[in-house]
Amino acid sequence: MRKSIATVCLSGTLEEKLAAAAQVGFDGVEIFENDLVACDSTPRQIRERCADLGLRIELYQPFRDFEGVPADLLTANLERARRKFDVMTELGVDILLVCSSVSPHARADDALAADQLGQLADLASGYGVRIAYEALAWGRFVHDYTHAWKIVAGVDRPNLGVCLDSFHILSRGLDPAGIRDIPGDRIMFMQLADAPQLQMDVLQWSRHYRCFPGQGGFDLAGFVGHALAAGYRGPLSLEVFNDIFRQADAERTATDALRSLIVLEEELSTVDAAAAQGSAAVRERVELSRPPTPVEPAGFAFVEIAVDPLAEEAADILLRGLGFTRVARHRSKPVQLWQQADIRILLNRARPGVEDWTRGDAAIAAIAVESPDPAHSGLRAEALLAPAIPRRYGPGEADLFAVAAPDSTAVFFCRTDTGAAGEAVSWLDDFLPVAAEDAQLPGTLTRVDHVGLSQPSYYFDEATLFYRSVFGLHPQSSEEIPDPYGLVRSRAVTSTDGAVRFVLTVPALGGGRLPETAQFQHIAFGCPDIFAAAVDMRVRRLPILPVPGNYYDDLAARMGLDDALVENLRRFGVLYDRDERGEYFHFSTAMLGRRMFFEIVQRVGDYEGYGTPNLPVRMAAQYRHAALAGLV
Amino acid sequence: MRKSIATVCLSGTLEEKLAAAAQVGFDGVEIFENDLVACDSTPRQIRERCADLGLRIELYQPFRDFEGVPADLLTANLERARRKFDVMTELGVDILLVCSSVSPHARADDALAADQLGQLADLASGYGVRIAYEALAWGRFVHDYTHAWKIVAGVDRPNLGVCLDSFHILSRGLDPAGIRDIPGDRIMFMQLADAPQLQMDVLQWSRHYRCFPGQGGFDLAGFVGHALAAGYRGPLSLEVFNDIFRQADAERTATDALRSLIVLEEELSTVDAAAAQGSAAVRERVELSRPPTPVEPAGFAFVEIAVDPLAEEAADILLRGLGFTRVARHRSKPVQLWQQADIRILLNRARPGVEDWTRGDAAIAAIAVESPDPAHSGLRAEALLAPAIPRRYGPGEADLFAVAAPDSTAVFFCRTDTGAAGEAVSWLDDFLPVAAEDAQLPGTLTRVDHVGLSQPSYYFDEATLFYRSVFGLHPQSSEEIPDPYGLVRSRAVTSTDGAVRFVLTVPALGGGRLPETAQFQHIAFGCPDIFAAAVDMRVRRLPILPVPGNYYDDLAARMGLDDALVENLRRFGVLYDRDERGEYFHFSTAMLGRRMFFEIVQRVGDYEGYGTPNLPVRMAAQYRHAALAGLV
Repeated sequence: MRKSIATVCLSGTLEEKLAAAAQVGFDGVEIFENDLVACDSTPRQIRERCADLGLRIELYQPFRDFEGVPADLLTANLERARRKFDVMTELGVDILLVCSSVSPHARADDALAADQLGQLADLASGYGVRIAYEALAWGRFVHDYTHAWKIVAGVDRPNLGVCLDSFHILSRGLDPAGIRDIPGDRIMFMQLADAPQLQMDVLQWSRHYRCFPGQGGFDLAGFVGHALAAGYRGPLSLEVFNDIFRQADAERTATDALRSLIVLEEELSTVDAAAAQGSAAVRERVELSRPPTPVEPAGFAFVEIAVDPLAEEAADILLRGLGFTRVARHRSKPVQLWQQADIRILLNRARPGVEDWTRGDAAIAAIAVESPDPAHSGLRAEALLAPAIPRRYGPGEADLFAVAAPDSTAVFFCRTDTGAAGEAVSWLDDFLPVAAEDAQLPGTLTRVDHVGLSQPSYYFDEATLFYRSVFGLHPQSSEEIPDPYGLVRSRAVTSTDGAVRFVLTVPALGGGRLPETAQFQHIAFGCPDIFAAAVDMRVRRLPILPVPGNYYDDLAARMGLDDALVENLRRFGVLYDRDERGEYFHFSTAMLGRRMFFEIVQRVGDYEGYGTPNLPVRMAAQYRHAALAGLV
Repeated sequence: MRKSIATVCLSGTLEEKLAAAAQVGFDGVEIFENDLVACDSTPRQIRERCADLGLRIELYQPFRDFEGVPADLLTANLERARRKFDVMTELGVDILLVCSSVSPHARADDALAADQLGQLADLASGYGVRIAYEALAWGRFVHDYTHAWKIVAGVDRPNLGVCLDSFHILSRGLDPAGIRDIPGDRIMFMQLADAPQLQMDVLQWSRHYRCFPGQGGFDLAGFVGHALAAGYRGPLSLEVFNDIFRQADAERTATDALRSLIVLEEELSTVDAAAAQGSAAVRERVELSRPPTPVEPAGFAFVEIAVDPLAEEAADILLRGLGFTRVARHRSKPVQLWQQADIRILLNRARPGVEDWTRGDAAIAAIAVESPDPAHSGLRAEALLAPAIPRRYGPGEADLFAVAAPDSTAVFFCRTDTGAAGEAVSWLDDFLPVAAEDAQLPGTLTRVDHVGLSQPSYYFDEATLFYRSVFGLHPQSSEEIPDPYGLVRSRAVTSTDGAVRFVLTVPALGGGRLPETAQFQHIAFGCPDIFAAAVDMRVRRLPILPVPGNYYDDLAARMGLDDALVENLRRFGVLYDRDERGEYFHFSTAMLGRRMFFEIVQRVGDYEGYGTPNLPVRMAAQYRHAALAGLV
């Protein structure tokens, strides 16, 4: 299907919006009138610009407060429309969106509205223009698409139909199945927006919080399926009013937008969705994106930490304290491989592309996930517009495919056992063993439980859609955690079996003095016995994060735990949580540089969380500890 | 009355919160349990810290999900309470806030709840603790303060009473007059929060959007008046959950908070409020802040622009183009006085305290308002915690009192005719006339219509309260204006007669690439005839901001104006707006530096706005013009 975006979704001047939409691969745009009015190009110049960019202008919008008015106002409204048809002729666009009236002058009179819409359609036909009448969720009399269709159906004009906007329909909880009763050629246009399920004034909700399909709580595939079943063959067009998108980089937003439509078409192209569309015959006549099927990652192959030379000693202390051993070095790069059980950590002395990198810093620079078919995973990532990272590799070295995650972390797909599919080499072959160190007791850690990544302010929805679509991970519920210096939003995206878990954090508000912990990254390692691990790491002199005594007093009061357990937790600085599914024990190391730390966790039973109730305590302790460290 | 603040209102560690509250002059605090739990000091250390700071710990909070539960859970809950009473004893605080239950284990049984609250009170009495039971707006069974009081009244325990929280009561639209039916000694505590009138889920509203009294839509003076009439003599204590305050500087927030309570007490101390309190006798027994009465400013005395030396020529061109003449220079500072009619502009070559000041910049550094009694205005500003700006002045020069507005602009109080009250000198005496320039036609401008000031992100409510309380100005409705690169929030604060108008702007979202126009400042000059002014200024070669033709095509379609008027508007780049009260004509100059411009406006009839519908067009034109200017 053609893919289109309303210019109001994107930041910038009209010319910048058009360039961004074309750049990422949209087929067309809806021109939002305010963007044209503020623009210095004539409508004809915009038409030429769109032609140059290969963009079709699908729709001109919005035309407001037309129908159901007294005769003198109708005359004025028709004159207003005539002027807009002149503009549309110059622009070369042939559908006008007419919103249901919110005017105090309008009357609740369907016959009057129908008659006047008929007159508008007659005037429009002289310009070759079609009218798409849309029921606004807050329309004064018409706020249900079935009502809008009833009025339109009563007017026998082929160039008069309805516009179906998913937000206006689904925000009011209307059943979209009624769309099937509208002839496809009278569905003049369809506008798509998702939205989080908020309980708030619908106008404010619409104007500030819409998001792209798959980023909110609406069933967009079901919605579009009904329209396809009815015979709609126009574009999938996004109309999203969102404060963040207004301020964000237009090309980044456009990429996120187009990705959302590709995912939506993929959902539509599945058998289940085809059934929802009514018949396979319908599906066959609609061309839908079918990116390579998602392959769930089976685990973490490695996590690569970039360390400034000044932080190398600290990294050594922490990794040894955790029970890791340095086992190999890269053949051509300043990279060390540390290992414990099947956990592999790369320490890379090269400076990553982090903006405010300073001496002594460390950061997660790359993550590799195990894919049963890395080449296939790479093709899917590409189809979903994940930015590929060009790699340099020496002769005989593994060529791993990597994409940039929204926070710029490189994410690799690989198979540690056999190398990338179709290749003879494994990434492990790029490393040469180093001389064995003194014999040590084996460590107590068994796996990477999760990786915590901080996201740039305001790109949380984009990140969630990215991990969901590119990696086939499942977004969990969003949590809000009060850091001493601001609210932090946190959301996990996980594989079905929990073998791969990312915990994404972001400051709830951008700007100002951001809560630093929202910008921390961490690697959490799983172990079968938290106290055994704590004892072992104490012996290894791991610097751990102290936890205040007040926490344990409160824990004892809240949880009714037995005193011996509380004293053990207190002794080892272990945090504790439980829910109806199980228990969670966790403690953290001191910081490595300004932005990362390690965590040691034990899951008991089917606990699926991350100790959210404890995180304010951990965050406060991290500030305190960092402040004390500065005194050393 | 004692003034208190809950630690949850402020950003930082518990120690930082306490320091900020004490620093600005609060008498006490509510300790929010989460702050204590995350803190490394023992309760006894916190008690000592508060004593050192002169802060009384008024309340410990919250204790949740206590009442109406099965017997086994009651035992556990009493044990939980006992542990908290231990903590409270260490802290030296004697009131515990108990929130109405949201537990799934609770039963809808008032008698059971009463019995269990009675047991809690009995346990508490052994510790000298009083219980303040609060109906949460989202309490499972108890969500109305009259219901909470009914339960409490049924238990004959002097140490059991209610906590009245203005948010929980007013957000549900409950009538606060029922407070008068509660004996004053059973109102154990009162928590104050205002909130904007939002239609949204009450829990989200409460947790993220509360604000200080006078910053939202609730009648806090009326609310407190009822409690005073009932005999409440505890502190006025703020409990405000707000995402912004969590992230902001704690001392700044604490100042804003304390100012809000001073204003609230001032409202309570007026005759009307005393009537609401039931009797003058009540008022006399309560000590209320009475800052010097507000004096509305009568106009603008001057606006001072700081110009970088590189911008002086541009400033000359713009001021001359507007019809101003340089008439004097300061006796001791590099400041020129430009005048037209009674409008006075100071050009100051000194660099202001602007963070990112660069070559060629210009900014509004100071504003002087005419006060009938500048000394009185200064005392009021001081009483309302406006930060005074230390001034240097030479022998015989006027000593003007200035305060720093929230955006750091200096605001002076002065009387241009006679000098500051009680002083012999007028600020004008500090200036020496310069040689008369060539005779010119008089200009067309007659007054400063308004001054546009950009506010720091997230401090909009603070700014509004500042201008309202310190200057006695009236906040107008808040508008949202789409700039090409983000949403801009705009709100005017005006004197009753419109002689002084400030238009405050702020980016709707902080962080990211902020819309630059939200950070623009401007001075708007009024004139009696916009076209006469436009012709005059064209002759004077004033560089004006071009307006795109599409704007006029749309204006003609929207407004049904006659063609000759539209052509005149188009010819002179004049923007047009009208409402039911009158009309507004306005055009802008080119930018002076990167952040300021001038506007020329004509008001017809009783139009009270600022051309909001035109501002997106102006903003887009400003980016375009600045980009073109860069090419010259």
